[in-house]
Amino acid sequence: MAVIDLNADLGESFGSWRLGDDEAMLEIVTSANVACGFHAGDPLTLERTCALAAERGVRIGAQVSYRDLAGFGRRFLDCSEAELRADVLYQLGALQAMCTAAGTSLAYLKPHGALYNTVVRHEAHARAVVSAVRTFDPGLPVLGLPGGVLLDQARGAGLRTVTEAFVDRGYTPAATLVPRGQPGDLIHEPDVAAARVLRLVNDGVITAVDGTGVPMHAESLCTHGDSPGAVAMARQVRRALEEAGVEVRAFA
Amino acid sequence: MAVIDLNADLGESFGSWRLGDDEAMLEIVTSANVACGFHAGDPLTLERTCALAAERGVRIGAQVSYRDLAGFGRRFLDCSEAELRADVLYQLGALQAMCTAAGTSLAYLKPHGALYNTVVRHEAHARAVVSAVRTFDPGLPVLGLPGGVLLDQARGAGLRTVTEAFVDRGYTPAATLVPRGQPGDLIHEPDVAAARVLRLVNDGVITAVDGTGVPMHAESLCTHGDSPGAVAMARQVRRALEEAGVEVRAFA
Amino acid sequence: MAVIDLNADLGESFGSWRLGDDEAMLEIVTSANVACGFHAGDPLTLERTCALAAERGVRIGAQVSYRDLAGFGRRFLDCSEAELRADVLYQLGALQAMCTAAGTSLAYLKPHGALYNTVVRHEAHARAVVSAVRTFDPGLPVLGLPGGVLLDQARGAGLRTVTEAFVDRGYTPAATLVPRGQPGDLIHEPDVAAARVLRLVNDGVITAVDGTGVPMHAESLCTHGDSPGAVAMARQVRRALEEAGVEVRAFA
Amino acid sequence: MAVIDLNADLGESFGSWRLGDDEAMLEIVTSANVACGFHAGDPLTLERTCALAAERGVRIGAQVSYRDLAGFGRRFLDCSEAELRADVLYQLGALQAMCTAAGTSLAYLKPHGALYNTVVRHEAHARAVVSAVRTFDPGLPVLGLPGGVLLDQARGAGLRTVTEAFVDRGYTPAATLVPRGQPGDLIHEPDVAAARVLRLVNDGVITAVDGTGVPMHAESLCTHGDSPGAVAMARQVRRALEEAGVEVRAFA
Repeated sequence: MAVIDLNADLGESFGSWRLGDDEAMLEIVTSANVACGFHAGDPLTLERTCALAAERGVRIGAQVSYRDLAGFGRRFLDCSEAELRADVLYQLGALQAMCTAAGTSLAYLKPHGALYNTVVRHEAHARAVVSAVRTFDPGLPVLGLPGGVLLDQARGAGLRTVTEAFVDRGYTPAATLVPRGQPGDLIHEPDVAAARVLRLVNDGVITAVDGTGVPMHAESLCTHGDSPGAVAMARQVRRALEEAGVEVRAFA
Repeated sequence: MAVIDLNADLGESFGSWRLGDDEAMLEIVTSANVACGFHAGDPLTLERTCALAAERGVRIGAQVSYRDLAGFGRRFLDCSEAELRADVLYQLGALQAMCTAAGTSLAYLKPHGALYNTVVRHEAHARAVVSAVRTFDPGLPVLGLPGGVLLDQARGAGLRTVTEAFVDRGYTPAATLVPRGQPGDLIHEPDVAAARVLRLVNDGVITAVDGTGVPMHAESLCTHGDSPGAVAMARQVRRALEEAGVEVRAFA
Repeated sequence: MAVIDLNADLGESFGSWRLGDDEAMLEIVTSANVACGFHAGDPLTLERTCALAAERGVRIGAQVSYRDLAGFGRRFLDCSEAELRADVLYQLGALQAMCTAAGTSLAYLKPHGALYNTVVRHEAHARAVVSAVRTFDPGLPVLGLPGGVLLDQARGAGLRTVTEAFVDRGYTPAATLVPRGQPGDLIHEPDVAAARVLRLVNDGVITAVDGTGVPMHAESLCTHGDSPGAVAMARQVRRALEEAGVEVRAFA
Repeated sequence: MAVIDLNADLGESFGSWRLGDDEAMLEIVTSANVACGFHAGDPLTLERTCALAAERGVRIGAQVSYRDLAGFGRRFLDCSEAELRADVLYQLGALQAMCTAAGTSLAYLKPHGALYNTVVRHEAHARAVVSAVRTFDPGLPVLGLPGGVLLDQARGAGLRTVTEAFVDRGYTPAATLVPRGQPGDLIHEPDVAAARVLRLVNDGVITAVDGTGVPMHAESLCTHGDSPGAVAMARQVRRALEEAGVEVRAFA
């Protein structure tokens, strides 16, 4: 029986500003990438999000970021390796406290936004993240894009690595993401997304924008919840997986 | 043989801004109240301060604060009890990660600045701090001003409480601090400070500004390290204690 | 012919976080209280909001706040008078630059959130605001709650003061706001709000929660735009005013 | 008679954190690059620094930066052109308010730290700065490194540009700065600095690290004030200039 994890970014409100429908998404996903306060997530939001996740049995990952509230962590910040390592440690600890308050424990780390994209190639920043995880808890898995520097280094450091595919992003025949703004960058039809995901889970093949099938291995599927349409798509994908007999279960 | 702890505020630099002589103070004190990033302390500073403290066997306490970098945590912030509880949890976890990286563990909590003063009387804010500590680690002692709401509530919640006296602040005959700006608010002569401290440790009596002796119990002495004079006074006080046969030892 | 101004809080998004429907409200109001970055409003949001307001002929006021992004400026911050004066000056200048970029100029100041409520009674904080306005531009009017310390001091300092009433808040027979959470605190029916507003504009009388009429003078009406319902109410109130022959016009 | 301006970075304290000896430097320099709150400079510090500068007749420039307090503006931040333009406008306005309070007016703009270095080559970020200046005040000069994209674009946009040389940094025979960490990167002897500066001012030639003379034109000399040694060097350079009959005068 095939097994897959569904993850989504949660806890991304800040003070009076609300973002995403965390409650709806916590009924759908099995892993919650919870913000840690550096790109989003005031402490009270984080505490509540972790409590809700724990109640529903959803595993909690630390969605660590560059320190950039104004840019929502979407802008590369050329910090030093030592600064980034300490920033990641700080965020891991802060979110672990919210997990403790919720009666659970951090289950994994996933980089956010610009950091996610940067550590695919940036040796020093990837090293900073890996070093922080090893120091904080060498048993903590790292979730990220297959084929990048981060997961290579994490594996080399003895960490468990978990790869993900995107439910609503187009892939090229070379198995990379279609850049935003180019044709086929986003998948808007839940049916298409669900069919593609089923093929990936069952056959290890993703359907690229040109229709070809590309081998891909993913233990987790990244969904989004920042719009009503995104929530609906995530829900339909989960239903399609279950109806096809796939077990939707956290990897951690 | 009498025993006393010496504590000081450390890790209060932020980025390029340096404050205090942490290395010098870590040779003097037995407990380091390390900032947690809300009034001071960027993550790299916190990581390094905790590493230095751990190397020297100095115990690390979380010096939690209102969220107020611009005001250095010295301004009352009328946040809700739930917000403050979450803010304290967040800070405890963040600093715990730095302790983990240093091969040690958080040893206590001490509120900083305006929060320190506020929880002496503010029921809701005291409750928030106590609730955060109980949730994070019910074995974590709370260090604070004797006779205030915080320590009362902490004791009531089953937490260990630790009282402190100030090495360089004047006391009234009612055992309260002489308000800043009034005659006798600060003690500038190391000799005077040392003699007063010895009397306190040996006899449980503090010499008030009018010369009278006031009964006082303190397990820890708060010293300062934010000026060369402050460091020199702390060093002289420690020497006087040791020469008088007092054991200077962390309470935790 | 009766004349009244309609004001609303705008520019309160921050980075990726959106708040309120600024475009819709700019079709309704005649004065925009634009955030200044201390409780909300990243610079790009402020620049765009000011540009949109200027295009529509809506006057721009500086909605100054305590420095508290995490609390959206809704929490009292016990800063010094000198700090607050400088904080207000800084915000006035920053928003003036956005007005300059939009080809216009700041038209007034209105305190936000906790500062709005505090300066009704807090002498030092009211003084700080008044001093900042006098220093920045003694021709700048101050918009606020009638009967408070701020407007008294502003008048005493030779500043123009403008009073406002709330479209959707209940009033007591003593002409004060019904505290939030008490019966009658909020008006939810646009019809009721419109009728009450017409009476206020035409007769100088506000209908209190107990049905009695209370004399009140207001040159501006505060509306809200942070929910679809709020926008609809503001639109209906404006239409009712116009249909009754009231001229809706900026006071500045 | 030769004329030269001396500039230095000032107003770089933040809250309780002090940096540099602003009072001493204001007796030496003729132009003060005052921080604007994005890398340093709380509003009260900015207000006081501008007041002191105005009292002494020192011209005030806006030292604008990426939004990065934790990194002191020394880390490249990959923001969009529109974001950076708005960030610069915001800072210009904020500091202009402090100038207004001091009875003076902004005299120029100088980018700080990572932004200073980035706009030497980064077209979009240089464009953002130039666009902000043109919008805010097309009469405002831009001070920066000779030969970079920023000054090229500024000239092209009709802005006045002012070039600077560094009093305490070594130059290569190609007239570029010796990278930090390489031999000759910094000049520590006030005598050497003074002699080199005199040659530059009188002959338009800078002595490079290999002893060769390199043609260079600079209207301003950048000095530092962040250490007692730096202040002493700046003082000695000024004295040497005056003794040699050079007029030390603001360019603006």
